[in-house]
Amino acid sequence: MTTIDCNSDLGEGFGAWSMGDDRAMLDVVSSANVACGFHAGDPVIMLDTCRAAAERGVAVGAHVAYRDLAGFGRRPVHVTPDELYADVVHQLGALIATARVAGTAVTYVKPHGALYNTACADPVQAEAVTRAVADVDPTLAVLALPDSELLRAAESHGLRAVREVFADRAYEPDGSLVSRSTPGAVLHDPEAVAARVLRMVTGGVVTAVDGSDVRVQVDSVCVHGDSPDAVEMARAIRALLTEHGVRIAPFAPAAAGAAS
Amino acid sequence: MTTIDCNSDLGEGFGAWSMGDDRAMLDVVSSANVACGFHAGDPVIMLDTCRAAAERGVAVGAHVAYRDLAGFGRRPVHVTPDELYADVVHQLGALIATARVAGTAVTYVKPHGALYNTACADPVQAEAVTRAVADVDPTLAVLALPDSELLRAAESHGLRAVREVFADRAYEPDGSLVSRSTPGAVLHDPEAVAARVLRMVTGGVVTAVDGSDVRVQVDSVCVHGDSPDAVEMARAIRALLTEHGVRIAPFAPAAAGAAS
Amino acid sequence: MTTIDCNSDLGEGFGAWSMGDDRAMLDVVSSANVACGFHAGDPVIMLDTCRAAAERGVAVGAHVAYRDLAGFGRRPVHVTPDELYADVVHQLGALIATARVAGTAVTYVKPHGALYNTACADPVQAEAVTRAVADVDPTLAVLALPDSELLRAAESHGLRAVREVFADRAYEPDGSLVSRSTPGAVLHDPEAVAARVLRMVTGGVVTAVDGSDVRVQVDSVCVHGDSPDAVEMARAIRALLTEHGVRIAPFAPAAAGAAS
Amino acid sequence: MTTIDCNSDLGEGFGAWSMGDDRAMLDVVSSANVACGFHAGDPVIMLDTCRAAAERGVAVGAHVAYRDLAGFGRRPVHVTPDELYADVVHQLGALIATARVAGTAVTYVKPHGALYNTACADPVQAEAVTRAVADVDPTLAVLALPDSELLRAAESHGLRAVREVFADRAYEPDGSLVSRSTPGAVLHDPEAVAARVLRMVTGGVVTAVDGSDVRVQVDSVCVHGDSPDAVEMARAIRALLTEHGVRIAPFAPAAAGAAS
Repeated sequence: MTTIDCNSDLGEGFGAWSMGDDRAMLDVVSSANVACGFHAGDPVIMLDTCRAAAERGVAVGAHVAYRDLAGFGRRPVHVTPDELYADVVHQLGALIATARVAGTAVTYVKPHGALYNTACADPVQAEAVTRAVADVDPTLAVLALPDSELLRAAESHGLRAVREVFADRAYEPDGSLVSRSTPGAVLHDPEAVAARVLRMVTGGVVTAVDGSDVRVQVDSVCVHGDSPDAVEMARAIRALLTEHGVRIAPFAPAAAGAAS
Repeated sequence: MTTIDCNSDLGEGFGAWSMGDDRAMLDVVSSANVACGFHAGDPVIMLDTCRAAAERGVAVGAHVAYRDLAGFGRRPVHVTPDELYADVVHQLGALIATARVAGTAVTYVKPHGALYNTACADPVQAEAVTRAVADVDPTLAVLALPDSELLRAAESHGLRAVREVFADRAYEPDGSLVSRSTPGAVLHDPEAVAARVLRMVTGGVVTAVDGSDVRVQVDSVCVHGDSPDAVEMARAIRALLTEHGVRIAPFAPAAAGAAS
Repeated sequence: MTTIDCNSDLGEGFGAWSMGDDRAMLDVVSSANVACGFHAGDPVIMLDTCRAAAERGVAVGAHVAYRDLAGFGRRPVHVTPDELYADVVHQLGALIATARVAGTAVTYVKPHGALYNTACADPVQAEAVTRAVADVDPTLAVLALPDSELLRAAESHGLRAVREVFADRAYEPDGSLVSRSTPGAVLHDPEAVAARVLRMVTGGVVTAVDGSDVRVQVDSVCVHGDSPDAVEMARAIRALLTEHGVRIAPFAPAAAGAAS
Repeated sequence: MTTIDCNSDLGEGFGAWSMGDDRAMLDVVSSANVACGFHAGDPVIMLDTCRAAAERGVAVGAHVAYRDLAGFGRRPVHVTPDELYADVVHQLGALIATARVAGTAVTYVKPHGALYNTACADPVQAEAVTRAVADVDPTLAVLALPDSELLRAAESHGLRAVREVFADRAYEPDGSLVSRSTPGAVLHDPEAVAARVLRMVTGGVVTAVDGSDVRVQVDSVCVHGDSPDAVEMARAIRALLTEHGVRIAPFAPAAAGAAS
């Protein structure tokens, strides 16, 4: 029986503000990328999200970001490697303690937004992020684009590298993502997206924008949680995978967490 | 040989701003109350302070606070117990990870400013703070006023309660502090302060404002770090204690830390 | 023909987060209490809200608040009168300039949340708020509870005092609001609320919780904008008022603004 | 008699933190670039700085910045032109109202840190900043590097362009500043700096790093306020200028301010 992980960004509210329908998404995915307070999330939301994940057996990952509440972590911040290292340690530590008191454990790290993009492409930022992760807890995994600087840096630190595909993104023939600025870069039809995910998970291939098949490496499927029809799409993916005998489960069960 | 701990608030800068002369104070005290980002401190300053403490064998404590950078944590914030619990878990976790990568460990928690005052007096806030500490790491100590709600709550959670006296504050005959709004509440003469501290540490008594002797329980001496002549006063205290054979050392050596 | 103002809290998002359906509410009300960045609102949202208000002839008021994004301005902050004065000047100035470049003008000030409650009850905070308003622009109005310290202070500074009623709140026989902690304090039925508003506006009376009629002074009706059915309730009020020949229009037309 | 303006960055504290010796600098310079809350400054500090400037006849300028307290405005923030426009309007409005209640008026705008650098070089950001200034108050001046995109954009909006030189910076033979990363880029000897300033002001030339004379256009001299010996250097400049009959006075007297 095939097993695959589905991850989604959760806990992205702040104070009185919310973002997406976390409860519904937690019933669909197996790994929750929990905001750590730098782009979104406050201590109460972090704790609430960890508790809800723990109740459902959903794994908890640290969704570390640049410090930029006003920009939701979507803008690159010109931090030095030392600043980035300290920022990641800080966020990761806050979530580790929060997950612990919620009865679960952080098992992986996935950078958010602009930090994800930068750390996947820039070996200097990738090194700062992964050194922070390794120094805090070397049993943590790092979740990112296959073939990225971030996963290479993770492996160089002896961290488990988890490769993700994006459910709703178009792919180039070389396996990279079509830029968001290109029309058609983001897919919106739940059924078509679900079919693509099924093929990626069971066949290891996805149809690129030119119609060719491209091989993809997939340990986890990223399902977006903040768009209007996010829940519907996530449910369509889960339904189709389940129908075809694919089990959705965390790549790293919370029980194996290092923080316990 | 008598041994006593001296603690001071450190790492209270933010970004480009600094507060006090941390390096000088770290050469005098044995325990550093490190700001955790809510009233002061950012990840870089927290890491830098932990490293400097580690180099000198100074113990690291979490100086948790209300979330109020603009007010430096000196204003009460009307948080619910659940919010306060989550806030303490968050700050404590951030510092635990930071201390770990700095080669040391958090060994105690001392609330800051308005949270210190409220948690010493209000059993509900005391309970929220100490439950958070116990849930994150039950080997941590709590540092506060003797005979306070905070230390009672710490003991009820099985946490080590560490009683502190204030080097530069006047005492009432009943052993409580003279209110800051009363003239003479804060002492400024380094030699006189040092002599008081020596008597508190070796004799367990301090002269109250009415001239009477009052017994004090002291596991640690709080030495303020942010006033203009803070370093001079701290050095005077250390010199006089040393001269009289009192050794200044952490009440809880970093090596015993739970985070290692 | 009777004319009445309807006001609502708008522009209460921050960065990527939104709150309520501002565009729908702007089609219903005649005065927009625009968040000024201290409890909600950022420069882009403030500008966007002012432009949308200007397009519809909706008056713009400064919804000044305590500095507390994490608490959405709902928690009292222990500021001194001098701090509060400076905070109000700052927020008011930011919105005045923003309204100006949006082609409109700030015509009134209504404190938000905890500051509203405190400034209505505490003459010291009322004085600080209204002195700030008068010093920035003495042609501005102040919108608040009838018979409040805030309106008394406004009048003492020569500012226009605008008295508001709350569409969805129960009233005590003495004309005060039933405390939110009492069951039934907030009304949820749009038709019943609309009928009450009509009676308040045209008859100057409202049925209190004990069934008695109580006289109310009303220059403006506050319609909440952030609850799930806020828009439906606001539309019901507008429809019933219009049906009975009551025109909804700003108590202070933007054209009379002092900022032009 | 020659008259020249000297400007300095002031009011750059935040909450409990201070930066530099503002009172001493205000006794030396004629124009205060007042932080507006985005990189530094809070409402109380802004008001206090405006009052101190007003007492001394020092002109008040808006030292607008990217929103980045943690980075002190020294890091470029990837804002869109629309965001930057709204950010400048907001900060400028806050300071205009603050200056007004302090009995003075904002007479110019000088961007801070990373925004200064970007807006001097990038015509898109220069346009956003100057359009905001012109829309808020077209009588305001813009203070920046001679021959910069920012001053060109200011002139295109009909704003007065004020050209500044830097007292303590080395110049290239083409009149540009030597990059800070080059040794010798910043000068530290007060007497030498004062002599350079005198020559720039009275002769319109400065000695470049290669020993050649380069012509400079100078309407204002920027004197840094946050370095350890800032006050000493500022006093040396003022003393030498005064000795040679050069009067230090605002390029735009507060009395001519548009906000009154």
